Amino acid sequence: MTDASPAADFSDAHKSRAKAWFERLRDDFCKALEDVEDDVTGPNGTSARPAGRFERKSWERPGDVAGSMGGGGVMAVMRGGRVFEKAGVNVSTVMGEFSEEFRARIPGAAEDPRFWASGISTVIHPNSPLVPAAHMNTRMIVTTKGWFGGGGDLTPVFPMAEDTERFHASFKDACDKHDSAYHPRFKEWCDRYFFLPHRNEPRGVGGIFYDNLNTGDWEADFAFTQDVGRAFVAVYPEIVRRRMNETWTDAERQAQRVKRGRYVEFNLLYDRGTIFGLQTGGNTEAILMSLPPDVAWP
Amino acid sequence: MTDASPAADFSDAHKSRAKAWFERLRDDFCKALEDVEDDVTGPNGTSARPAGRFERKSWERPGDVAGSMGGGGVMAVMRGGRVFEKAGVNVSTVMGEFSEEFRARIPGAAEDPRFWASGISTVIHPNSPLVPAAHMNTRMIVTTKGWFGGGGDLTPVFPMAEDTERFHASFKDACDKHDSAYHPRFKEWCDRYFFLPHRNEPRGVGGIFYDNLNTGDWEADFAFTQDVGRAFVAVYPEIVRRRMNETWTDAERQAQRVKRGRYVEFNLLYDRGTIFGLQTGGNTEAILMSLPPDVAWP
Repeated sequence: MTDASPAADFSDAHKSRAKAWFERLRDDFCKALEDVEDDVTGPNGTSARPAGRFERKSWERPGDVAGSMGGGGVMAVMRGGRVFEKAGVNVSTVMGEFSEEFRARIPGAAEDPRFWASGISTVIHPNSPLVPAAHMNTRMIVTTKGWFGGGGDLTPVFPMAEDTERFHASFKDACDKHDSAYHPRFKEWCDRYFFLPHRNEPRGVGGIFYDNLNTGDWEADFAFTQDVGRAFVAVYPEIVRRRMNETWTDAERQAQRVKRGRYVEFNLLYDRGTIFGLQTGGNTEAILMSLPPDVAWP
Repeated sequence: MTDASPAADFSDAHKSRAKAWFERLRDDFCKALEDVEDDVTGPNGTSARPAGRFERKSWERPGDVAGSMGGGGVMAVMRGGRVFEKAGVNVSTVMGEFSEEFRARIPGAAEDPRFWASGISTVIHPNSPLVPAAHMNTRMIVTTKGWFGGGGDLTPVFPMAEDTERFHASFKDACDKHDSAYHPRFKEWCDRYFFLPHRNEPRGVGGIFYDNLNTGDWEADFAFTQDVGRAFVAVYPEIVRRRMNETWTDAERQAQRVKRGRYVEFNLLYDRGTIFGLQTGGNTEAILMSLPPDVAWP
């Protein structure tokens, strides 16, 4: 990990490849979740519903007077499915200038406030309290420096040891292909990040989290970021399929609604991506797509 | 308004009177809401429930090693009433030392980090989407300076002009008894404060908001703060009674659940009291009592 980042590493050609990858990963993930919708038997009356499908909606980031801001994204959302109550998969590629307030806080922005950022972000809220919620995000950011970041984490209402182990093992495999130091470091970072100090409790059972990744080898870092995405897109549907045909009780559903309240608290009080997005004029609808559909603070 | 605050104005005798007032106001307000519960006819099946009652729970703030922190409060909560789905009325009186990070931001704390604070805070979430939600808070804070602050605002799902006018008129009367400049200033402050920039929408229809009030006449400022509390405790139940016997539709209820999501967004993203409370080790359960019981982000 170094902050030496020859600008050439984050060339336009590399930006294009990163953007294309995030879009392909989105397509693969949406397909994987739609396949789950087709295959479920539908406990608790959910089989009466049609299999859920993603709907896509494009949005554009307003350009500024100097024309230096712009870009946009596509928000893919499934609502009211048999398995997925609400699943959002956003890909956005935006460019602009950081405001005065952000320049000191973003690597490389003090020298020149212009930035380019592309990434994928997904949050899934299943109907069943027995099926874990999950989040994954990977991104490439370019200022006068450039780096990758991202991760994924699992938020079960009732943690099951074998699901947690499978989830961690999948990210460990992805990490170990690149650097044996990655997984311990990024798993610990995830535990530290997805934590609610005011509740003194973790958001879920963790996963991995990394940021400012620039080893000086763009190809290697991009390949790692791709493997993180692939690992999540494979393992999450696998865990969903283990649990999706089990029926649940009203009490379990209520526990899920309360647990989702904690998710909201984390995202609005602490999540840097959410707060950063809202403060930099991001697309509110896309950013807050992460919030669960049905929540209780009893 | 001046920041000249002779310490004697915020003497122990005055602290005791403020604390006693907030507790009395709490008792009066809880009684007023319980009377509403007794008097409703109970639309949408709510008459099958027993009239709601407040339950009180005391909590203590942990003292620090130097013994300079402490105090506590009482959280009064009504849940599942005929009219009120969740109503919280908290009174707390706490003392301690501001952390390094807060000293520069709190008037009078740079010189000496010790503080004393007492106040009442209430948030009411009715069952009916036709009955507005509401919030009121008044407080007295003492550092090397001392001041009052507070206000109240109304959050209807479907604003009704006559309710809004009645609510504003009540606060205007309370303000005008003290200073004709107060109401225009504090109403505008409220509109500016209870606003969601990321949605470009107000939280509700406003009310009043004031802070750092110290005219140099403690008795006058205390009397004003009492009148603000009295005005709210009179006008809110009056507005509730106008609407509480009307039946509502499922679509109206769903609109209410979505509107409540905006309330959550405001409180967790922007509300200074919430964020300040959580960051200074306040009582999480009491602070987040403001969050609505049943919320949707569809």
